[in-house]
Amino acid sequence: MRTIERLTSLGLLAWFCCLSAEPVQGGKVLVMPVDGSHWLSMKILVKELSLRGHEVVVLVPESSLLIQGSDSYRTEVFTVSYSQQELDANFNELRKGIFVPPKSTDFLLDIQRLIDFTNLQVRGCESLLHNEALMSRLRAEGFDVLLTDPFLPCGSVLAHLFSIPAVYFLRGLPCGLDLKANQCPTPLSYIPKFYSGNTPQMNFPQRVKNVFFSFVESYLCKLLYANFDYLASKYLEDGMTYKELISHGAVWLLRYDFTFEWPRPLMPNMVLIGGINCAKKGPLPADLEEFVNGSGDDGFIVFTLGSMVSNMPDKIAKQFFDAFRQIPQRVVWRYTGVPPTDVPENVRLMKWLPQNDLLAHPKAQIFFTHGGTHGVYEGICNAVPMVMFPLFGDQGDNVHRMVARGVAEKLSMLEVTSETVVATIRKLINDKSYKQKMVQLSQIHLDRPLQPLDLAVFWTEFVMKHKGAAHLRVAAHDLNWIQYHSLDVLGFLSLVLITVLVLTLKCCWFCTRSCFRKRTEKRKSQ
Amino acid sequence: MRTIERLTSLGLLAWFCCLSAEPVQGGKVLVMPVDGSHWLSMKILVKELSLRGHEVVVLVPESSLLIQGSDSYRTEVFTVSYSQQELDANFNELRKGIFVPPKSTDFLLDIQRLIDFTNLQVRGCESLLHNEALMSRLRAEGFDVLLTDPFLPCGSVLAHLFSIPAVYFLRGLPCGLDLKANQCPTPLSYIPKFYSGNTPQMNFPQRVKNVFFSFVESYLCKLLYANFDYLASKYLEDGMTYKELISHGAVWLLRYDFTFEWPRPLMPNMVLIGGINCAKKGPLPADLEEFVNGSGDDGFIVFTLGSMVSNMPDKIAKQFFDAFRQIPQRVVWRYTGVPPTDVPENVRLMKWLPQNDLLAHPKAQIFFTHGGTHGVYEGICNAVPMVMFPLFGDQGDNVHRMVARGVAEKLSMLEVTSETVVATIRKLINDKSYKQKMVQLSQIHLDRPLQPLDLAVFWTEFVMKHKGAAHLRVAAHDLNWIQYHSLDVLGFLSLVLITVLVLTLKCCWFCTRSCFRKRTEKRKSQ
Repeated sequence: MRTIERLTSLGLLAWFCCLSAEPVQGGKVLVMPVDGSHWLSMKILVKELSLRGHEVVVLVPESSLLIQGSDSYRTEVFTVSYSQQELDANFNELRKGIFVPPKSTDFLLDIQRLIDFTNLQVRGCESLLHNEALMSRLRAEGFDVLLTDPFLPCGSVLAHLFSIPAVYFLRGLPCGLDLKANQCPTPLSYIPKFYSGNTPQMNFPQRVKNVFFSFVESYLCKLLYANFDYLASKYLEDGMTYKELISHGAVWLLRYDFTFEWPRPLMPNMVLIGGINCAKKGPLPADLEEFVNGSGDDGFIVFTLGSMVSNMPDKIAKQFFDAFRQIPQRVVWRYTGVPPTDVPENVRLMKWLPQNDLLAHPKAQIFFTHGGTHGVYEGICNAVPMVMFPLFGDQGDNVHRMVARGVAEKLSMLEVTSETVVATIRKLINDKSYKQKMVQLSQIHLDRPLQPLDLAVFWTEFVMKHKGAAHLRVAAHDLNWIQYHSLDVLGFLSLVLITVLVLTLKCCWFCTRSCFRKRTEKRKSQ
Repeated sequence: MRTIERLTSLGLLAWFCCLSAEPVQGGKVLVMPVDGSHWLSMKILVKELSLRGHEVVVLVPESSLLIQGSDSYRTEVFTVSYSQQELDANFNELRKGIFVPPKSTDFLLDIQRLIDFTNLQVRGCESLLHNEALMSRLRAEGFDVLLTDPFLPCGSVLAHLFSIPAVYFLRGLPCGLDLKANQCPTPLSYIPKFYSGNTPQMNFPQRVKNVFFSFVESYLCKLLYANFDYLASKYLEDGMTYKELISHGAVWLLRYDFTFEWPRPLMPNMVLIGGINCAKKGPLPADLEEFVNGSGDDGFIVFTLGSMVSNMPDKIAKQFFDAFRQIPQRVVWRYTGVPPTDVPENVRLMKWLPQNDLLAHPKAQIFFTHGGTHGVYEGICNAVPMVMFPLFGDQGDNVHRMVARGVAEKLSMLEVTSETVVATIRKLINDKSYKQKMVQLSQIHLDRPLQPLDLAVFWTEFVMKHKGAAHLRVAAHDLNWIQYHSLDVLGFLSLVLITVLVLTLKCCWFCTRSCFRKRTEKRKSQ
């Protein structure tokens, strides 16, 4: 019994106190989404939770891009200290440079743009935190769980303030902050750093590069997360960092699996739901179905650059139009720019297109994509080889993974010519290995015991029922860096070893000297 | 394309070559089981695989304890170079000492007994390997997967020889060899070593103890696995260790989850199937049902010491009989010893009992168990608090986990008295926290999206269909210890840093000296 008392005082058994025996049938879910493409996949889970009888409230800033109301969930719109124009301008800043040849100073400019973006988001969050009426109302509602994407900090701040467990829904955070916060081991020797261009099989120079990238990243990420650290420290606990704040996440729903991500260690509360966005397929609109069906044996190409980019300079667009004129395939292209007068007959331009439904069509041959994770997974789910044009953010690294797996080719949007486009299309069509490898990847991805959406719903409900998932939380959260790596212990044991060695040597020396002295004295006396 | 070529040469894409597109509908499964309680849970999966249409062949040594034929699967009996008597004597040696007061030399004796045990098992495996007729027949069968428990090496050796992927089914290996072989990070700072008595929350002396245990363990395990290393090296590749051999396991089905195991990092190919043995519950035989139902509100106690121990010295048994005479509960006890003439009326002695069905009975109050993992999970599944008597092997550590979670009390079989038994029973009945915590633990354990048996079947079929699970294999397997920890890279970067520093300092010194010299010369000339 003494053991139990000692453990209780150490906090081991603390998790029992926060477990509930009653199942949550119709739970209350507070959702703090992140705008843009992040919302598009989270919305799938939000709608499903609502369908399964939970009451869902989504917090929406009055200025937003894609987050809208729905019959499936209630929205709470909150005023923010910036206008829609300011938000658009901020996002446009991030988009800037995509179609402009890079300069050596771009790197610093990109960092500054990201800091401006985080600054705006922090201002938005502060507006919510100062909205006392809404905050009191939300607190009084007694939510069972908070669902958020920790790409932005406001959700985690609310979970902490309202003392409700948080479920995170994300692809990953810059600098691997999600892994660091969740104490997930990430050996630099076989897990490539973002943008290092490495694969898990690294030679010595590549491993040096990987370690070097990790040093640089540490510094850059201090800059990047400074605004979030400020928010946590100001509104929660003095000195609290963003990493510390998000480390309290109960379950991390991660939008990847090992057909996309390199194999790596995981923590017990990391749940892989890669491909959640391409589970449901619908029929195509009649005219589109007719268009793609008319492509015959040559099939068709799906061309989109994601929810954020649907336009490009005429000079670049011309290269594509010229290329498409030379191929037998048809093309369905999400393009909101002014079309030229001579759009080829085999090209259908659309303001928005049902990407996943198109890729699921048996005649889909190639997917032209920017390499956002949603698109990549729709490519994998439907086994369509890709021509990839990375634009910004994580896209460069996503593309690298697909190219390394032999299921895609990469082209630079800035250097694209009609010749390279045509050559790449022909390569993907004629070299059967792309399709073959993509089919294999797709089969592995789709061969799973539970659909990602069901898994996401299960774990959200688990956290609601058991008021967290404390039994999955590792004790590493209570250790500092030195303790975690047992450096203090190794130091202590080395000290003990050295002391023992020195004492032994001293003893030996003392004995030898005594022996010698006695002999000398004996000789002298003789 | 250059990137792909480079990667192909590095082996990254090698895994594509071993993937198959065709689903395995009725696959062929070769099973190399481990005798004793290990077989009891593996048999559940074996039977289920057979039920789902796979052809299962179980290899059975002619001298065995619990492995028998069945209508569900085909057996291939092979001769071994030891008799049933020799095997029984070997197991009896392992059981020795359970009921004898420990001596200071026991530790060395235990190691010697284990080495003798592994030696006998290696001899058995060699008999199979030299059985050319059977080996040729097995090779010709073209199995899709080999299912084995790597607690003993023969299964892994066969998988390697026949070039078929292996699925491992186990609780864990001594010295955490399973984790080491599978490259699973195990920080000593928060993951208690076996038998250290630590919990994840360790203070400095406990962490020192943990590190110290890990050093001792490394040495002992070299002794323990020497026979297996010899087998791998002799029959497979010169110099191959057992760790290296089992590192090729495609999927590790692990008989635990985090209601039993302390939370820790996992690898992508580690699948948790804790509780697989208590999924199916049947009705009790009529007379037993009548007996336990007659216990009224006081309920009954289930008392077993596992498949290996069903007897005890009369002196110890008397303490239990005396204790049970004093309590209102009824007792169902698996006891094969000679019963005394005055067995209390509330005690039913049985040669074998339906443990899980009894624990599932609503009147089951307490589980007297030795702390084997099967029993522990049956206790958790059915939410029955436990009085635990660890006897040997991993049981001491299993018991420690349950006691630390506040769902069990531990008693020593050697020091047990009727008074301590009665007092412990009253404590568990009167202090409601034991039951309450056990119910919470049970609810968490049972709240899972998929039953462990379905999960085990899924992953075995996955390995059959895709001829392995190479996409889950980490690149760490290709690195040595220095490379894995990036020590060579850190050494190199330190060298570069020191060189730059020394050069900079030399430059500064040279400049300063030049400056001084010039000034002195100037002054002199003035």
